[in-house]
Amino acid sequence: MAEKVSSGSRGKPIRCRAAVCRKPGEPLVIEEIVVAPPMPHEVRIRIIYTSLCHSDIVFWKMKDFPGIFPIILGHEAIGVVESVGEDVNEVSEGDTVIPTFMAECGECRDCKSTKSNLCSSSELPFKVSPFMPRYGTSRFTDLNGETLYHFLCVSSFSEYTVIDIAHVTKIDSGIPLSKAAGLLGCGVSTGVGAAWRTAKVEPGSTVAIFGLGSIGLAVAEGARLCGATRIIGVDVNQDKFEVGKKFGLTDFVNAANSENKSASEVIIEMTDGGADYCFECVGMASVVQEAYACCRKGWGKTIVLGVDKPGSQVSIPSASILCTGKSLMGVLFGGLKPKSDIPILLNRYINKELQLDEFITHEVTFEDINKAFDLLIEGKCLRCVICMNDQ
Amino acid sequence: MAEKVSSGSRGKPIRCRAAVCRKPGEPLVIEEIVVAPPMPHEVRIRIIYTSLCHSDIVFWKMKDFPGIFPIILGHEAIGVVESVGEDVNEVSEGDTVIPTFMAECGECRDCKSTKSNLCSSSELPFKVSPFMPRYGTSRFTDLNGETLYHFLCVSSFSEYTVIDIAHVTKIDSGIPLSKAAGLLGCGVSTGVGAAWRTAKVEPGSTVAIFGLGSIGLAVAEGARLCGATRIIGVDVNQDKFEVGKKFGLTDFVNAANSENKSASEVIIEMTDGGADYCFECVGMASVVQEAYACCRKGWGKTIVLGVDKPGSQVSIPSASILCTGKSLMGVLFGGLKPKSDIPILLNRYINKELQLDEFITHEVTFEDINKAFDLLIEGKCLRCVICMNDQ
Repeated sequence: MAEKVSSGSRGKPIRCRAAVCRKPGEPLVIEEIVVAPPMPHEVRIRIIYTSLCHSDIVFWKMKDFPGIFPIILGHEAIGVVESVGEDVNEVSEGDTVIPTFMAECGECRDCKSTKSNLCSSSELPFKVSPFMPRYGTSRFTDLNGETLYHFLCVSSFSEYTVIDIAHVTKIDSGIPLSKAAGLLGCGVSTGVGAAWRTAKVEPGSTVAIFGLGSIGLAVAEGARLCGATRIIGVDVNQDKFEVGKKFGLTDFVNAANSENKSASEVIIEMTDGGADYCFECVGMASVVQEAYACCRKGWGKTIVLGVDKPGSQVSIPSASILCTGKSLMGVLFGGLKPKSDIPILLNRYINKELQLDEFITHEVTFEDINKAFDLLIEGKCLRCVICMNDQ
Repeated sequence: MAEKVSSGSRGKPIRCRAAVCRKPGEPLVIEEIVVAPPMPHEVRIRIIYTSLCHSDIVFWKMKDFPGIFPIILGHEAIGVVESVGEDVNEVSEGDTVIPTFMAECGECRDCKSTKSNLCSSSELPFKVSPFMPRYGTSRFTDLNGETLYHFLCVSSFSEYTVIDIAHVTKIDSGIPLSKAAGLLGCGVSTGVGAAWRTAKVEPGSTVAIFGLGSIGLAVAEGARLCGATRIIGVDVNQDKFEVGKKFGLTDFVNAANSENKSASEVIIEMTDGGADYCFECVGMASVVQEAYACCRKGWGKTIVLGVDKPGSQVSIPSASILCTGKSLMGVLFGGLKPKSDIPILLNRYINKELQLDEFITHEVTFEDINKAFDLLIEGKCLRCVICMNDQ
């Protein structure tokens, strides 16, 4: 249970509970830790809901750098500002915020361009770092004084965390704080954004989605909102078709059972030439190649969202690149700028256009956070929300 | 010398001279050949000027399929319609036309889309075929009755050739027939189109061009017309910088002499992060990878124009695809639709906006066609125009 925090905590360390991962692949342990006050341009927030994303599992298992331990994982959450550091004017104590692994400084060439979401402020470029982005230090220590590492600038598996202001999106005070809104911090925004902002899926178009986890289904939801008329899901788990229908899936290809045909061959036949937009949400070079193979010549776009293992290479025949007019690109966070685009998606949720609640298949208490890992690893859940204790 | 052809030739075979390539890599031989009359949807044209493109050399040397012999090469030309087959209404005898290796049927899904230039009519999809596209037969025989093969639906190294109407662009009768206009049949259109239609280069942007042959320089010309402020050429031949300046080149990187830095590293430094648009005009997977490496994260586009050897693969690190937001695509004929876009470019030439004459560095008579090969192989020319005899 977090100690009672009043405005008196401002500027002081907070002692609270966090789910610490001390060794790769080992269950998280709920420990008491100390969270330092925010430095200039930082805010300390109380996490209200967090959820488990597949990238947490990738880094939880990662034995070599950038895998690093002990660490506080978690990067999809919603919380309330407890206190702010110097030079923070954008949010105040008590504001509801969504933290994101992507920064938006608002000042750099990328933030000012409509074409990029990769903030290039010298202090904030996207990288997997175990520290706060601006200072290269941690705000977490355990009760022995040992440093605990940050994760993706968020570390939401803690009752309190410190986040750089560039990684925080303020939520309008008129909008009720909801479990679902936290999903906009990573997975749903990534998928919806890839269809909406990056691919710019057009009404009437055909979409193929490789990998039907939460991100793949969020692509389907985004494509549905953009007016795609045919949304083909590809997965090795047949049950995903039924799950995906509520997000607009119209067709399903079982990649494990295609009668001597590759998924790309099946899709080319189904669509009489290929899908207008293909999305890779698995993180395997061979799947990227499959997606590229079945996007429509002339205008097909293949968009990579999946995180592949370090060192992996995608190989495309030179003749295909030259002669088909297809394009290949990847995107982080769906191409969205967090502070600009999360409020737009949240409004679409409030207006009942964008489905978010439908992604939440499970809820657990903070003490049961390891159950969330089990559920996701077993493919039994979309999003499992972890409810911090004192809600 | 071509026999005198009057309207009496209509519907009959024409005996004329052609530069025939009988074995890979051997000098062309000017021979008398017989050109059959056009079939329905075909036109027979008298070539006035043709020029040598690097792709002619690639296929001239190609020992294995799709290399095939004896063949009449040549695919960049301008000519006059001698006669038309049945069902041809678009052009008449005496019209000036530019043939193209790309078709535009005007009816298929691709031709009707603004996003594709890859005509998908079942009879006309782009392929390297030794025959007429619609019938799979040749219109050429030698004096022994042996079939001579077609090349890229054009075969312009002949005084007369037969071309499918989908591969013919009619030139407005008010425009004088010029040597320069023939360059719009392939190289210049490919380069200019890649900058203009495919990349959509924006005013103020930075462009890097790998390979400064005619196509690379035509990319520069297109980028110049689009208002790019920095146009960086990359080549192993330092002399190309001076040549390229007239097409807008502002900077040069000698890829053979970069002091332990790759061209991509030099360009990243020069541009403080990379070029907005990179064009590969060499046809080597390693150069595509270099171009991709130095296009700007966030929005950089790499566009492949070069024809690589069969079987070649381009490898890109998965992490670069996901995390940089760059895109990779290729394009034939610069993404232009021949019948729609050649007239636009021709008007820009007439209005003295688009430079064409500047690409013509040499002229030879038809008898000296092998000199054109020597000049291009030695890197001594941009375009060498071959003037057919009776002009």
